[in-house]
Amino acid sequence: MENTKILSSGLKEECGVFGIYDLDGGDISTSIYFGLSALQHRGQESCGIAVSDTQGPKGRVHSHKGLGLVNEVFRESKLEELKGNIGVGHVRYATSGSTTVENAQPLVLNYIKGSLALAHNGNLINAYELREQMENEGSIFHTSIDSEVIAYAIAKERVRCKTVEDAILRATEKIQGAYGLVVMSPRKLIGVRDPYGLKPLCIGKMENTYIITSESCAITSLGAEIIRDVEPGEIVTIDKDGNIHSSFIRQKAKQAHCIFEYIYFARLDSTIDNISVYESRIRAGASLANSYPVDADLVVGVPDSGLTAAKGYSEASGIPFGFAFHKNSYVGRTFIKTTQKDRESSVKIKLSVLDSVVKGKRIVLVDDSIVRGTTIANIIKMMKQAGALKVHVRVSSPPFLYPCYFGTDVPSNQQLIASSHSEEQIRQMIGADSLGYMPIEELQGMVGDLPICKACFNNQYPMEVPDQEIRNLLE
Amino acid sequence: MENTKILSSGLKEECGVFGIYDLDGGDISTSIYFGLSALQHRGQESCGIAVSDTQGPKGRVHSHKGLGLVNEVFRESKLEELKGNIGVGHVRYATSGSTTVENAQPLVLNYIKGSLALAHNGNLINAYELREQMENEGSIFHTSIDSEVIAYAIAKERVRCKTVEDAILRATEKIQGAYGLVVMSPRKLIGVRDPYGLKPLCIGKMENTYIITSESCAITSLGAEIIRDVEPGEIVTIDKDGNIHSSFIRQKAKQAHCIFEYIYFARLDSTIDNISVYESRIRAGASLANSYPVDADLVVGVPDSGLTAAKGYSEASGIPFGFAFHKNSYVGRTFIKTTQKDRESSVKIKLSVLDSVVKGKRIVLVDDSIVRGTTIANIIKMMKQAGALKVHVRVSSPPFLYPCYFGTDVPSNQQLIASSHSEEQIRQMIGADSLGYMPIEELQGMVGDLPICKACFNNQYPMEVPDQEIRNLLE
Amino acid sequence: MENTKILSSGLKEECGVFGIYDLDGGDISTSIYFGLSALQHRGQESCGIAVSDTQGPKGRVHSHKGLGLVNEVFRESKLEELKGNIGVGHVRYATSGSTTVENAQPLVLNYIKGSLALAHNGNLINAYELREQMENEGSIFHTSIDSEVIAYAIAKERVRCKTVEDAILRATEKIQGAYGLVVMSPRKLIGVRDPYGLKPLCIGKMENTYIITSESCAITSLGAEIIRDVEPGEIVTIDKDGNIHSSFIRQKAKQAHCIFEYIYFARLDSTIDNISVYESRIRAGASLANSYPVDADLVVGVPDSGLTAAKGYSEASGIPFGFAFHKNSYVGRTFIKTTQKDRESSVKIKLSVLDSVVKGKRIVLVDDSIVRGTTIANIIKMMKQAGALKVHVRVSSPPFLYPCYFGTDVPSNQQLIASSHSEEQIRQMIGADSLGYMPIEELQGMVGDLPICKACFNNQYPMEVPDQEIRNLLE
Amino acid sequence: MENTKILSSGLKEECGVFGIYDLDGGDISTSIYFGLSALQHRGQESCGIAVSDTQGPKGRVHSHKGLGLVNEVFRESKLEELKGNIGVGHVRYATSGSTTVENAQPLVLNYIKGSLALAHNGNLINAYELREQMENEGSIFHTSIDSEVIAYAIAKERVRCKTVEDAILRATEKIQGAYGLVVMSPRKLIGVRDPYGLKPLCIGKMENTYIITSESCAITSLGAEIIRDVEPGEIVTIDKDGNIHSSFIRQKAKQAHCIFEYIYFARLDSTIDNISVYESRIRAGASLANSYPVDADLVVGVPDSGLTAAKGYSEASGIPFGFAFHKNSYVGRTFIKTTQKDRESSVKIKLSVLDSVVKGKRIVLVDDSIVRGTTIANIIKMMKQAGALKVHVRVSSPPFLYPCYFGTDVPSNQQLIASSHSEEQIRQMIGADSLGYMPIEELQGMVGDLPICKACFNNQYPMEVPDQEIRNLLE
Repeated sequence: MENTKILSSGLKEECGVFGIYDLDGGDISTSIYFGLSALQHRGQESCGIAVSDTQGPKGRVHSHKGLGLVNEVFRESKLEELKGNIGVGHVRYATSGSTTVENAQPLVLNYIKGSLALAHNGNLINAYELREQMENEGSIFHTSIDSEVIAYAIAKERVRCKTVEDAILRATEKIQGAYGLVVMSPRKLIGVRDPYGLKPLCIGKMENTYIITSESCAITSLGAEIIRDVEPGEIVTIDKDGNIHSSFIRQKAKQAHCIFEYIYFARLDSTIDNISVYESRIRAGASLANSYPVDADLVVGVPDSGLTAAKGYSEASGIPFGFAFHKNSYVGRTFIKTTQKDRESSVKIKLSVLDSVVKGKRIVLVDDSIVRGTTIANIIKMMKQAGALKVHVRVSSPPFLYPCYFGTDVPSNQQLIASSHSEEQIRQMIGADSLGYMPIEELQGMVGDLPICKACFNNQYPMEVPDQEIRNLLE
Repeated sequence: MENTKILSSGLKEECGVFGIYDLDGGDISTSIYFGLSALQHRGQESCGIAVSDTQGPKGRVHSHKGLGLVNEVFRESKLEELKGNIGVGHVRYATSGSTTVENAQPLVLNYIKGSLALAHNGNLINAYELREQMENEGSIFHTSIDSEVIAYAIAKERVRCKTVEDAILRATEKIQGAYGLVVMSPRKLIGVRDPYGLKPLCIGKMENTYIITSESCAITSLGAEIIRDVEPGEIVTIDKDGNIHSSFIRQKAKQAHCIFEYIYFARLDSTIDNISVYESRIRAGASLANSYPVDADLVVGVPDSGLTAAKGYSEASGIPFGFAFHKNSYVGRTFIKTTQKDRESSVKIKLSVLDSVVKGKRIVLVDDSIVRGTTIANIIKMMKQAGALKVHVRVSSPPFLYPCYFGTDVPSNQQLIASSHSEEQIRQMIGADSLGYMPIEELQGMVGDLPICKACFNNQYPMEVPDQEIRNLLE
Repeated sequence: MENTKILSSGLKEECGVFGIYDLDGGDISTSIYFGLSALQHRGQESCGIAVSDTQGPKGRVHSHKGLGLVNEVFRESKLEELKGNIGVGHVRYATSGSTTVENAQPLVLNYIKGSLALAHNGNLINAYELREQMENEGSIFHTSIDSEVIAYAIAKERVRCKTVEDAILRATEKIQGAYGLVVMSPRKLIGVRDPYGLKPLCIGKMENTYIITSESCAITSLGAEIIRDVEPGEIVTIDKDGNIHSSFIRQKAKQAHCIFEYIYFARLDSTIDNISVYESRIRAGASLANSYPVDADLVVGVPDSGLTAAKGYSEASGIPFGFAFHKNSYVGRTFIKTTQKDRESSVKIKLSVLDSVVKGKRIVLVDDSIVRGTTIANIIKMMKQAGALKVHVRVSSPPFLYPCYFGTDVPSNQQLIASSHSEEQIRQMIGADSLGYMPIEELQGMVGDLPICKACFNNQYPMEVPDQEIRNLLE
Repeated sequence: MENTKILSSGLKEECGVFGIYDLDGGDISTSIYFGLSALQHRGQESCGIAVSDTQGPKGRVHSHKGLGLVNEVFRESKLEELKGNIGVGHVRYATSGSTTVENAQPLVLNYIKGSLALAHNGNLINAYELREQMENEGSIFHTSIDSEVIAYAIAKERVRCKTVEDAILRATEKIQGAYGLVVMSPRKLIGVRDPYGLKPLCIGKMENTYIITSESCAITSLGAEIIRDVEPGEIVTIDKDGNIHSSFIRQKAKQAHCIFEYIYFARLDSTIDNISVYESRIRAGASLANSYPVDADLVVGVPDSGLTAAKGYSEASGIPFGFAFHKNSYVGRTFIKTTQKDRESSVKIKLSVLDSVVKGKRIVLVDDSIVRGTTIANIIKMMKQAGALKVHVRVSSPPFLYPCYFGTDVPSNQQLIASSHSEEQIRQMIGADSLGYMPIEELQGMVGDLPICKACFNNQYPMEVPDQEIRNLLE
């Protein structure tokens, strides 16, 4: 474990949260397990579950956290120990160094009013200042994640507020940034979404069981129904009678929904703010077809992230859609580090070209992004070796150029090929016959009139962000 | 560990074998790791690697075996311990009860001429008799797998033969059944394929490194080139000078290649006996389109096994191809057993329907087989709930009706819906609007003029198989 | 993990602490490992190490904690990760229920002045009130141990104090109870001992490396020299120049050193407050011989706790000393729970009587305490079966009758045979021919004129303790 | 796993065997667990249990083996899986390189008559020749232990013998060396002891449960009664009616019981061939007192191996016996390798001198052997630092000078200080004031008139042993 004053990990988090409340008193730990499994794509490094029994002794919380996937951390026997009818769960992704059990969530803590469990997706931009201020008042921190700052902000307000919702409301006046939050108090399940709507959060229901979670796929996977999205700036409280109370954060903010959720991050079968992720990607592919038409025989996608946009390109262009690859699903997280000099062969173990499909064809190859460019270069080389006549690359997002301060892990400039090379240079480097990135002005078309944050493409942040000096401090 | 006289496990094995020999003396354990990863679809229950150094002390073999996937059993540190330039590996699938480390392969043994390591894919039909006979001569068995019978047959002949190939040749005169075999002797790598060609085996090469393995995908994944298939009945020996010696098993047999490899078992990017697995499945889909045409809006496949045949159906019928599902790739082997009464929800966690794709559409749903029928019934129900107007099911294999004696795990009759219900009954049970199985007379079309074994569909076995009495004994 | 308001675990802790500071910058994690191994008898349930580099970035702490013995939790690879020249370690014993990694120590925390690591042996009697008060000020607790209350008390004072020693000094004005404390700040190693001297703490040195630890055996095991004991109420600070600063807690208190350390808890080769533990036990044996002389052939001790007092009895009485038992050293913590109806056989597996030693002899059997009486009853039965003519039992402590509030795990009344039976009743129940407990008035003789706490024997506590009502709350 | 033709491991084995048969059908796996725990001192590297149900399907054996101590390899859940009323267990010690699960025992094998489980303590001197001969007949070996040679010898005879006892009898005509063997056949428990009586084996009974095991401590620990020792050359069979059949190996041999069992190897509370191990060590100490009297104040033993002989020395000399050391019982097998330059400090962590005991005293220090001499040198140094005036060393065995071929791990010559130094040189090297080894002619006195093997001291082997050339081959 490393403990430092620097919130290095806070900046690079991607996460999924899941809260559930069975008013009829049924056990919910298995449902959290399934819900977190549906959210696993949002974070694979650690996970946790905290449950409580609203009928039992006030505030007795059972929890377990661990490093690894949901099905690695939780076995049948562990779930059976987690008895309760209200609970929250969390999946987390963080860059190396801070991947510790201590930093895993949910945070479970004891304070003036008993126990509280909290799961947070997002990132605060003023965590550093708030933490310093709290430490000056004698506070102790056990983790290096900014979620503990939120917990403290709530705990400090709770002393003088009548309800936990009020304490949360007052705490939100201090914290700045992106957050989708699920809080379990002894008798209530509470969801909080930042006023910009940067992070998604939605509500579901199945009989007398209520769910608040990051993505709708976690609701439908359980066979439950989607009620609605939590609105930007809304604090939603589900009480023991199944009432859904709503109050709003006072801070006024212009909505700025993260476009990255639609481009890559969210699951294909989720609907966020009434927009189908699948449909948005089909539209991205169509937009690419209109912006960069080409005379070709076949459209293929890089599995799995490029498949839907490839389908959209095919439909809009009339060029047939095909499968050009076999992906080895057994090459996963725990695969050995390749020590082979040739990175190319490492790609071959994960992805094989179907020779008979690409041979003699002019191909449109669609992916959702290009980071370093080495993987796509290897794929193009493999396709040419298999006999492809042409490989035209189409990318369903604009080039990433600016850092994200809200919890999305955009690689640093040094790693981004786009930050130091022109499109023509990139085309040559990867060996493509043509290259087209999604034009930034077409991005809005993916999501209709939903206001979006596209700061990572155009440097226009929805709120004032730390200047360069603090930025370095944070890294 | 259970030790019994009954070869129960022997009957139900599916496996992959991989042998490699670097004439230049380079370490090959990492290559075996990658090769086995490419063969992982052939067996996920146990795996093993045995290596030797042809320059080192004669016959010193280092090996490791374990239960689980290749990347679970072998970590970097373990691979580093396995130093050598010649080796064999194995992945295994077996039904419960005999999934023990003892039964994992390769078998490593010491006999008159030093060490031998042996990896076997397939099943003998006279293992029981041979084993009884060997025990009568004072032999001891440490495992309950029929591969140990092959090892004994070779060891007993080796006493009076000049070379290990000769011993293998004489041993093959005794064993009856299906086998793809890779044998490592102190200085030679040997591949053996049964005279019927029931099990696949092929040869690859990369510079001065030779490979003998079950499927070509393990060759191409390493960046090596396919040389050719081992012929039915051929014994191929690679010696230290890179010579490929060939001799043939005396037993005459009519070729009968397992069609199941093309329908389901082999990897999409493999080529077996000069026929592309991908193309054979496209042809299966086309054949279904011709046999069971229907007026529909969209063709979709059950991921991943039905996707290619669906593509073939779409191309032949002109009905557009689409994706209707999201598959949760994190729901794997170690997922908790679902305790929910409704099996339906268990399917939902693994597979989600993309509502916007299926809504208002008449759909052709393609899969490669129907076993119990419960999964496809749930999928159809989910599609209808999502708004599909019609769901026409097409299956790219005929109904399985007869047991396989050659190492393919065909479920027992009781579990097979086809063995006790008519097609119309099945259609009603699964809730399809129409149902079409691949006609058995069209099966040959998948693979051109390659002679095939389709005994599991038509009860015509390529050799005399044990009668019912012994069959029961074996189960 | 269970989180409750009740400090149930706090009451029953026994622990060992170890702090070390190498002024020359050498790595110290291996020394902590060895030091904790020497203190392992003080706590076997969890352990932890926190280290820092006084030359490195201020306050970067590396730590690791786990459930189990020191040699189970720390392997070579883990120690190598813990680089630093200053550090603290902890071994812990706690009753079941709260044995969680979260409750393991050292506590590592971030506060106004950077990082702090704290290891605590002892128990506060006002932890409950302090915690309530702190929570009322908005504090959050992550553990259920009272050591976190000490940490908060320090953190809150640190805001307004110039040095960490000052903050500790002011914090000690709030906390009430028994404590031996080692604190690591970025540049200082600090030891604190409660004003009653209830818990031991001493200072050692080896070249330019300083040690502060619970027992001297941890100093001598490392080949270091004992400097002196930390005085009751003393705060000792070792700075980067090797100066040992001393200040004193203002609270005035009458010294009351825990006699239990000498009777049972401390290691035989330790010296506490200038009194050899070994010699004190020899004196206890001698005192028993004087108080309860008997005509016998042999004096034997129950291994290992009764051996030294038996030796003392033998020397004082002139009756020869002998070994009557073989103890199976492989029957340890992880041994299976005995499911045998007869508890007697469970004793036989751990302890065997040497028949030829006891046969035909009149024996004095010495042990340090009798709790439930079942074990000694079984031992006596075994000795009689082996042919002992008489078994006279001598116990080197008075009967335990009252609870300890200071961190020593005295079993509850219900389990104590002495709380509900007369000595004569006990004698009959265990089958002894005579029975003698150490007279309470002879206890002082073990330790010369050192003022001792013997409240667990006579109900006279050195400070006001919680009354019965709160006592129940705490249990 | 290393597989070689060389039986390197065979030479250096020390083991314990335990067989049990409950005629009333009760489960016996927990009893084996306890029995092996009592034998744990005979082997700590691997262990195993094989059980069968004599009422169940013939020859179904359940077994489990693993590396580590009995309480590490077997947990409650594992023991519950091992259902049966007859079983054998084994604990093993082997030098590094061959410590593999494959080489662990019991060997469980299938042969002509079903299953057989075999546990072996000892070593064959003609294993190499037998194995070569068996391989020439087509046999396959799965392990590198000579116990598999015994198994084969039995399996080969079983084909032509009416009973398993007959097969064992005929097999013993081929094998040469030392063995204490327990064999479980489907309905019988069989014990076999080599004709020289080199290895111990005894029979016990508790109600209708029979035990055959290496040492009597495993019988008495279970609360069972010792019936008698198995005689040298005897084959003892316990059948389902509780009859004890006895037959004798034809080979005539002069008895030569291993004296090492009494000096060091066996447990203090065992009786072997009617001689108490404890008493034999008391006699060894007395013998030393007579051979090397000295004017001293205190006799102490190196724990634990030297304690009993020290007691004997004290009794015979009249010099008082004392404890001079505290041994840290937590420094065990899994302790980290000390990387400290000074080996001295490594000794200090394991053993502390009680200063107040040795100060100003002239001391006799007794141990059972001196191997490299470094440990005792450190102990003497520590005692002198603690103020001992004189340290006179007495060793209760003669110097080891010759290899053991019968399964006792005598260190190789290079490591033995005695093989290259005179006693006076050793005395100086270890810093003793005087040194006395047990005179070889006094050795017999330990065990009365029991014929003993003392070849490791005097090079007179009870049978012809391999000459130097083969010896090297074996190492």
